[in-house]
Amino acid sequence: MSHDDLERAGFKDRTRVAEALATVRDAVTGHDRTERVALGRADGRVLAETVTAPTPVPGYDRAAMDGYAVRAEDTFGASGRSPAILREDDGDGVVAPGEAVRVHTGSDLPDGADAVVMIEETEEVGSEVEVFDAVAEGENVGDVGEDVAEGEELYRPGHRVRPSDLGLLKSVGVDQVEVYDAPTVGVIPTGEELVQHDPSPGEVIETNGLTVSRLADRWGAVPTYRNVVDDDPNAIRAAIQRDLAKDVVVTTGGSSVGERDYTPEVVDELGEVLVHGVALKPGHPVALGIVEETPVIMLPGYPVACIVNAVQFLRPILKAVGNMPVPEHPTVEARLDRKISSDPGTRTFARVRLSEEDGERVAEPTRASGSGVLSSVALADGWVVVPEEREGYDAGDIVPVEDWEWSA
Amino acid sequence: MSHDDLERAGFKDRTRVAEALATVRDAVTGHDRTERVALGRADGRVLAETVTAPTPVPGYDRAAMDGYAVRAEDTFGASGRSPAILREDDGDGVVAPGEAVRVHTGSDLPDGADAVVMIEETEEVGSEVEVFDAVAEGENVGDVGEDVAEGEELYRPGHRVRPSDLGLLKSVGVDQVEVYDAPTVGVIPTGEELVQHDPSPGEVIETNGLTVSRLADRWGAVPTYRNVVDDDPNAIRAAIQRDLAKDVVVTTGGSSVGERDYTPEVVDELGEVLVHGVALKPGHPVALGIVEETPVIMLPGYPVACIVNAVQFLRPILKAVGNMPVPEHPTVEARLDRKISSDPGTRTFARVRLSEEDGERVAEPTRASGSGVLSSVALADGWVVVPEEREGYDAGDIVPVEDWEWSA
Repeated sequence: MSHDDLERAGFKDRTRVAEALATVRDAVTGHDRTERVALGRADGRVLAETVTAPTPVPGYDRAAMDGYAVRAEDTFGASGRSPAILREDDGDGVVAPGEAVRVHTGSDLPDGADAVVMIEETEEVGSEVEVFDAVAEGENVGDVGEDVAEGEELYRPGHRVRPSDLGLLKSVGVDQVEVYDAPTVGVIPTGEELVQHDPSPGEVIETNGLTVSRLADRWGAVPTYRNVVDDDPNAIRAAIQRDLAKDVVVTTGGSSVGERDYTPEVVDELGEVLVHGVALKPGHPVALGIVEETPVIMLPGYPVACIVNAVQFLRPILKAVGNMPVPEHPTVEARLDRKISSDPGTRTFARVRLSEEDGERVAEPTRASGSGVLSSVALADGWVVVPEEREGYDAGDIVPVEDWEWSA
Repeated sequence: MSHDDLERAGFKDRTRVAEALATVRDAVTGHDRTERVALGRADGRVLAETVTAPTPVPGYDRAAMDGYAVRAEDTFGASGRSPAILREDDGDGVVAPGEAVRVHTGSDLPDGADAVVMIEETEEVGSEVEVFDAVAEGENVGDVGEDVAEGEELYRPGHRVRPSDLGLLKSVGVDQVEVYDAPTVGVIPTGEELVQHDPSPGEVIETNGLTVSRLADRWGAVPTYRNVVDDDPNAIRAAIQRDLAKDVVVTTGGSSVGERDYTPEVVDELGEVLVHGVALKPGHPVALGIVEETPVIMLPGYPVACIVNAVQFLRPILKAVGNMPVPEHPTVEARLDRKISSDPGTRTFARVRLSEEDGERVAEPTRASGSGVLSSVALADGWVVVPEEREGYDAGDIVPVEDWEWSA
């Protein structure tokens, strides 16, 4: 059946994207499997614990300048004309009254000292040190816990660990963190016309499962890319049941209401189809369901429709079951060089190529507008999302272009 | 030495960031090591070849609709009142004059047929098919090569492979691609005060090497995180020489002009220091050099200074030697809730936390402004870059916030 037919046959009431997503998200919960990993393995993982600082930074009073550690009161009244004369330390490392100890930035402040005189304000004369400026108590000293106090709360559960976090965690003496396991997803391509290579006439090379698997990997999940399943309700049922142990099941193809679209029917029999048909373009024949608490995302088989729906539904659902935040897509602004049309009430994804023209960024919609032409995505630099409340954009409009493929 | 002292002692003429980077980039070339990998291993890798389509997509004329494959001329003049009457195929799969063959979307167009009548415009009556509307030659048929022509150039060297690219490549029958090896980088932390854990007074936990290693990994490189090297010219020399087999060497600490800052001196003796002291803040005491064609990035030891310089210099140099594009940092706009000061002529990095206030995104500069306070980066959501030509930003300004840590 063509998409126009589907309209007539089964998609009279398409759910809006936000509502469709909320319906599924409300039905899923984050998993609770965690592991303890060393910092070197924690980058990009999601914290499953609140992390507080077991030790302060700095861990000791330290010199904040190169110079001499002193008792501040010994320098009171010192000036260029009338320097304070201090003795170099007698060797015990303790600053007794009238003594000074040479220190470097970051050095442990010696016992007895309560300030540091900058090296420029001193002169060594034999075993004595002339100090040309007074310092106040605490001057040029970094106090214990000045950067991070002992017991300070640093991170909460759900924070996705970044390289600088690893540095901070290590600096306070944390060398392992409790993180959530990456969510798992079974990726099941369906369609008896699909082959892995060397297609004969009438056959098509399977690409949706590969693309969706790699996207899931980029989104922080562990995908299992399954073999192609024929358009057969029993085969589809068996494939879905096998992957119910995963956090998410995703199928590609067979999600519409045509005579060979069995997947929604099978899911509704095993569990419940929550949404079938969404007001987005290209790709409205998507279905979203739940079987035994496992969300099942049924993506359309047309490659562009498949990708658009994976980004709109699979990504946030993977993030939800994986207890992960959902970062915004990297986005740049560009001037549109041709009009984009859309139907009000439908969220529309227009693929564009970016270029520079007179120092300005220009977005050119790719020629092919259909849902089947993979090259319209794969040879594009991103897409412009036309929200439901707009009727397209005009040539010359400054529009946001989502580089959705590089989203964390 | 303090940073103020350095100013006086050795950094009178600081190079601007863009000029410093150009100086090093001009001195390095992309490496030429490549490997051939299966598509499943190619995500995120950089193409080392031009890829053209060995086969077209579709690879055969295909039905673009569910319906009947026909000879267009047999339908001419057909209408609801006066349907064309065709015979169902005699079983040889060839559409002879006056015949029709049932097809599904994507089916191979049978020999003899040149158009498809949509199923809705037909009715099966016994072994005959009534056609209620005429079709033109080619109607509802997807021609060979309509999406991708045979021999079409798809990608050029330097393209970083994305999931949708993998789908397109697979669809045209490409199952391996030639990609550049990931660039390698030796990460050498220096500083005799550094320990890996359990610091005594005067000791500091090593964090820069860990953070820089993980950043390099995110940027597509393969880091080797070396043991800490003492502040000793011989030890530093040996460590740098060992890593000259890498594409890039990066050191942390000892990059300034103080009495224990040996690294630039060692590099200048082994090769050449091209830049020492850059007009950025925090972190001006950075040095950039070349030894035997290997770039050596000498990062300051203060954690924030180290990170700022890694992003400004190590990242683009790794991309250059790895033949990789340099994507822009993911950036969001926010309203600044407090003034940011900066010196004209200096590129300044102000760390901010983001929050929502009355539906608006607000950026609050973190309290600590120094170069030593790692928490000012690690507890922030990104930074505002104040360019050289500005004197800071005012409270209320809408500023771009770079989420640099999630850059590809």
